[in-house]
Amino acid sequence: MALIVQKYGGTSVANPDRIRNLARRVARYKAMGHKVVVVVSAMSGETNRLIALAKEIMPDPDPRELDVMISTGEQVTIGMTALALMELGIKAKSYTGTQVKILTDDAYTKARILSIDETNIKQDLDNGYVVVVAGFQGVDANGNITTLGRGGSDTTGVALAAALKADECQIYTDVDGVYTTDPRVVPEARRLDKITFEEMLELASQGSKVLQIRSVEFAGKYKVKLRVLSSFEDEGEGTLITFEEEDNMEQPVISGIAFNRDEAKITVLGVPDRPGIAYQILGPIAEANVDVDMIIQNTGADGTTDFTFTVHKNEMNKALSILRDKVQGHIGAREISGDDKIAKVSIVGVGMRSHVGIASKMFRILAEEGINIQMISTSEIKIAVVVDEKYLELAVRVLHKAFELDAE
Amino acid sequence: MALIVQKYGGTSVANPDRIRNLARRVARYKAMGHKVVVVVSAMSGETNRLIALAKEIMPDPDPRELDVMISTGEQVTIGMTALALMELGIKAKSYTGTQVKILTDDAYTKARILSIDETNIKQDLDNGYVVVVAGFQGVDANGNITTLGRGGSDTTGVALAAALKADECQIYTDVDGVYTTDPRVVPEARRLDKITFEEMLELASQGSKVLQIRSVEFAGKYKVKLRVLSSFEDEGEGTLITFEEEDNMEQPVISGIAFNRDEAKITVLGVPDRPGIAYQILGPIAEANVDVDMIIQNTGADGTTDFTFTVHKNEMNKALSILRDKVQGHIGAREISGDDKIAKVSIVGVGMRSHVGIASKMFRILAEEGINIQMISTSEIKIAVVVDEKYLELAVRVLHKAFELDAE
Repeated sequence: MALIVQKYGGTSVANPDRIRNLARRVARYKAMGHKVVVVVSAMSGETNRLIALAKEIMPDPDPRELDVMISTGEQVTIGMTALALMELGIKAKSYTGTQVKILTDDAYTKARILSIDETNIKQDLDNGYVVVVAGFQGVDANGNITTLGRGGSDTTGVALAAALKADECQIYTDVDGVYTTDPRVVPEARRLDKITFEEMLELASQGSKVLQIRSVEFAGKYKVKLRVLSSFEDEGEGTLITFEEEDNMEQPVISGIAFNRDEAKITVLGVPDRPGIAYQILGPIAEANVDVDMIIQNTGADGTTDFTFTVHKNEMNKALSILRDKVQGHIGAREISGDDKIAKVSIVGVGMRSHVGIASKMFRILAEEGINIQMISTSEIKIAVVVDEKYLELAVRVLHKAFELDAE
Repeated sequence: MALIVQKYGGTSVANPDRIRNLARRVARYKAMGHKVVVVVSAMSGETNRLIALAKEIMPDPDPRELDVMISTGEQVTIGMTALALMELGIKAKSYTGTQVKILTDDAYTKARILSIDETNIKQDLDNGYVVVVAGFQGVDANGNITTLGRGGSDTTGVALAAALKADECQIYTDVDGVYTTDPRVVPEARRLDKITFEEMLELASQGSKVLQIRSVEFAGKYKVKLRVLSSFEDEGEGTLITFEEEDNMEQPVISGIAFNRDEAKITVLGVPDRPGIAYQILGPIAEANVDVDMIIQNTGADGTTDFTFTVHKNEMNKALSILRDKVQGHIGAREISGDDKIAKVSIVGVGMRSHVGIASKMFRILAEEGINIQMISTSEIKIAVVVDEKYLELAVRVLHKAFELDAE
């Protein structure tokens, strides 16, 4: 008998039929003798409908009131889910974020969970109830309703699993697990039975959209066993995300390949090579709340340096204006240019730690296909390169094959 | 400077335009220096949509979970209303029933308010905020969400006005006040500037649909000045419902005429005239949760009696089955019959107390039109008669004219 937290996203609760389907799965787990906590998102489309309603009244809605409105999406789903369980003869009880008491800070629309009061839920579980909790929402110390930001229901699931010391947190989604890469790009992509948290973090932050990155961080921090599963298939083990690297000789060197088409590259050419120059360039960018991802600085021979970084495509023009208006004259840069026709490809794997030559193999494979590398960034378990956007699919495919990720 | 509670029903918040209109009215009151608390219902149609969603999952939905779902209707409206006020530059803050803490009993879907914590609202008002409160909902002692039943937003408005010792509770609706009778039946019907609580109670319970009867009882109990106004007109004083009869010689004898087409009449003929017979007939009806309105018993000459009472039309067949199955043989009644082609017409007025002959005048007027009276029931300030349904409009019209209620 285990305690399992199951989280279902918007597509898994999109209509009464899917909610009934969810209830039948929960019933099977209950019949096996498990205690089950269900975390649900709003029905797909509902959050956007509510945001549109708010914007119709106030184009840039006050975040406190926006949270009051959008938190109703999950509140409707918990009621429906509890009813669907009762209709199957299962005792069920719903909780809003306020009712659980999922205490958060007061950063409306992007609040962080501070603590969870698990007392009542534990008691209900002991009394044979399935407990249904609204994802994505919490309450601050003054009783104000908060939301956790997009994908926040994953975080609710993981945080509840941590608070309840659950045996497993199952994330039900519209894919049946984590893949070596996006199967739409590489049909030979394989579902991974297991992946480590570190790898999952790199894959998530590199653009793999299966899990929200904050929920993975949370799971790693509190050592919650996470499993990603399909809500549309009843068979299948999904992908288990473990917090321990197994001492396994057969551990693959590379676990997966992530990619991202959403970034743009900004280059500041001919910058005087002196201390503080990176801050002078990136300070005004950060002040304007533009997130910067990769940063590279090359020192040239003439006492100047070239400085390159990437931002989200939507923010390239904003970043360029800031640099041209506030920075270029000030630091005496020769030229400032932007390029949004780029893509980032990353290979990820804890096996890199014990294998040398992975980077050079990656560069060789790309070179053999005539793919020029524009930027390189590495971490202990990841190598990311920026290439011309048109080479994205080709790069992913040849790397997937070369690192033996293709399904047999 | 006054403290005013304004309650807006579903049609007054049906869409963003109407909510903006509401906000403009609140802004005018604010500009006059008043403190304003706004109570809103769900957007019209929303509660029914949520009930339908619940019933799609569970035909007879669990009331706790139903309340979790339907309370979201008002929660969306409070957010939108606060945003509309902010868009006009007015400081505003929304509260759910849980957040205020509108404490109720735990009778889901028809909870009663036990107490209201007015501390935070008072503080917000002192700090210049307009406070927007979700109508229709509360929270029980264990933190469960409850709702007050249809029309419960009126009750929320009145209860808040009582708790805050407001100078006036304004109920905005789609009519511009309380009329001498339904203007759709009698085009000459007049809006009343004032009406007493007792009269309003009789009018409400007799089928006048302007205010929910519980809110009127509440207002009477806590001496809250109530005013009914149109949310679609900016001019007009509406109807003030006062808790004191004024010592006014010009007080009209009759204030209004109510009517009701929703009742059916059940007659038990030839009942032995002995003690306890009324209980033997009505006991099984009450046990089946069928509400009984008028009750009349006539003693005949032959030692038997005829017993007649009215129930809601929808429950006539249920009541007839109960009587035929469980009562008729037991008490030895000759015949049991039902008639749902009836209507009830009531004349209401505190002036009756000081004027004799009102009842006989009413009966004479109906007789002159050839309208047969089937049942009569009276209270200190009301005379109600049951007539054939086809005479309803005629009866209301001639009484309205005879008691000088027609507009000049």
